[in-house]
Amino acid sequence: MELWFTEKHTENSGITIKIKKHIHSEKSKFQQIDVFETLEYGKMLTLDGLIMITQKDEFIYHDMITHTAMAVNPDIKKVLIIGGGDGGTARELSRYASIEEIDMVEIDEKVVRVSQKYFQETAGHLENNKKVVLYFEDGINFVKNKSDYYDLIIVDSTDPIGPGEGLFTLEFYKNCYKALNDSGILVNQNESPYFEQNAKEMKRASSKLKKLFPIFEVYQFHMPTYPSGHWLFGFASKKLHPVDDAKLNYWENLSIKTKYYNVDLHKASFCLPTYVKEMLLNESK
Amino acid sequence: MELWFTEKHTENSGITIKIKKHIHSEKSKFQQIDVFETLEYGKMLTLDGLIMITQKDEFIYHDMITHTAMAVNPDIKKVLIIGGGDGGTARELSRYASIEEIDMVEIDEKVVRVSQKYFQETAGHLENNKKVVLYFEDGINFVKNKSDYYDLIIVDSTDPIGPGEGLFTLEFYKNCYKALNDSGILVNQNESPYFEQNAKEMKRASSKLKKLFPIFEVYQFHMPTYPSGHWLFGFASKKLHPVDDAKLNYWENLSIKTKYYNVDLHKASFCLPTYVKEMLLNESK
Repeated sequence: MELWFTEKHTENSGITIKIKKHIHSEKSKFQQIDVFETLEYGKMLTLDGLIMITQKDEFIYHDMITHTAMAVNPDIKKVLIIGGGDGGTARELSRYASIEEIDMVEIDEKVVRVSQKYFQETAGHLENNKKVVLYFEDGINFVKNKSDYYDLIIVDSTDPIGPGEGLFTLEFYKNCYKALNDSGILVNQNESPYFEQNAKEMKRASSKLKKLFPIFEVYQFHMPTYPSGHWLFGFASKKLHPVDDAKLNYWENLSIKTKYYNVDLHKASFCLPTYVKEMLLNESK
Repeated sequence: MELWFTEKHTENSGITIKIKKHIHSEKSKFQQIDVFETLEYGKMLTLDGLIMITQKDEFIYHDMITHTAMAVNPDIKKVLIIGGGDGGTARELSRYASIEEIDMVEIDEKVVRVSQKYFQETAGHLENNKKVVLYFEDGINFVKNKSDYYDLIIVDSTDPIGPGEGLFTLEFYKNCYKALNDSGILVNQNESPYFEQNAKEMKRASSKLKKLFPIFEVYQFHMPTYPSGHWLFGFASKKLHPVDDAKLNYWENLSIKTKYYNVDLHKASFCLPTYVKEMLLNESK
C-alpha cells in the first residue's frame, strides 16, 4: 500500500508527498491537527490539511522570519510572537543573548502540545526557557491591551482562513502598531505572489500595513513545501529601514550560525521580481 | 472524470496538476514528447514525463537565462543556444538589436515542431527570424568545430538524463570554452540545491565549470513548476564578472520590458542561502 498526502495549492494544482505513517490526528477547538512521518521531508505538521512545517525545510522559514529584523535592530529586547505554535520562531529568537523577553501568544494550545511531542527540535525550546512566556489566547485581544512596549512583533500565522483570519485585519495591525515602541518593527507572514488567491491576500495585507507604518517592505525566500515555493514576509517599521539601517557587520560578529539566512541574502531578499513589485505598487487597486 | 498529471520530483514527493486535455503525445527518436492543456498553468510541455515549460511560468526561466548575461556584456553579438527547443530563450535574445546572430542547436527537431504548433508565444519567434539559424543536431558535436567565435553560449538543457546527459560533461564544457571568444560567457541550466539528486548534479556541473573558467558564479530564481521551486543557473566567464562588471544602467536604458528580471534582482540573484554557498564550496568533495 502507498499512502500519499496531497495538498491542493489551488483548485487545480498541488504538492504530493509519500507518507510513511500518519502518526497523530486530532480536532482541537480551532482546527484539525495532523502529524505525518514522510519519506522526503521527515515529520510534517498540518493544520486543516495545510502544511505548516516539515523537518526538512522549517529552517528556511524560521531563519527568515527572525534574523532579518534582528540584524536591523540589535537593541531588540522585548518580542511578541503571535501564533508560531511549532516553536521554531521562539527557538531562533532564543539564540540572542540581547533578547530579554519573548511573549508567545498561540490561540491553540493543542498545536504547542503536539509540537512538543513530535517536533522537539522546534518546540523543545518552549520548555524550561526563562525568556519565553506562553499565552494560550487570542493574539487579537492580547495586543489590544499593550501600548508602546515591544521592540518587535512577529505575526507567525497560518493563511487568512480559519483561526488566522483576524491576523490579517486592519484593526489587528493598528493594535500591533500601538503595542510597538517608537523604533518598533512588525514582521508578518505575507503570503505569496504567484497563485492568484495568495497574491490577493499578499496585496491586501501589504496595502493595510503600508497605510499604517512609515516604512513597509516585502522580502522573499524559497520555501519548497509552500504553494509555488515562492514565499514572502512583510517588514513594517516605525523608524528603521530594513536595508538602509541594517547592522549587518554587527550581526555577523554575533557568529550566529544559520543554514539559510546570511547578510548578503538579507539585502538581496528585498529585491523582488518585476511582476511582484508591480503588484505591490498597484496593491490597492 | 478528473485527470491529474503528477511529476515525481524525488521518489517520495512531487507536483500534481489537473489536466483539461492531453493534446499531443509522440515518441521522437530521442524522447517522449507530450503537451497538456492544464487549468492552472495554461499549456504545458513535458519531455519524458518531466515539465519543461508551462505558459504561466516560462517567463521566469527565459528572463533569467538571457538578460543576466546581456546586462553584463552589451557587446554580445554572436550567441549559441544549445537545446532550448521551445524557443523561449531565442525569443528573449531576439529583443536585443545589438545581437547579430543566434545559432540554436537542438538535437530533437520534433521538440521545435511541437512547440511551433502549440506554443506560438515562445516558438513563434523561431520562424521568419533572420537572426536565428536553427540546427537540428547534437550540440556536443556542434561546439567541437567552433573556436574563438561566440560571445555567449547558453546551455538550455534538460536534466542530465536522456539526451541532456552529455551537456553536463567536462569535455562538452571544454569545447564550449574553446568556442567562446576571450570575453566569452557561458550560462548553463545548473539544477537545484534542494533535493539530493538535483544538488548532486548542481555540485558536479559547478565543479567542472569552476575548474575551466576563471570566473564562475551561481544565481537563483523562483521556478514554481520545477522541483522545490528553487532553481539555479551557472554563469561561467573568461573575463567579465556577473556583478562587478554588470552594466546595469546601460541595460535599464535599453527599456526592455520584463516580468521577472530587473537590475536589482540581477545582483540579488547571485546572493545564495548559506547552505547553498557551503555546497558550492565543498562541491568537489
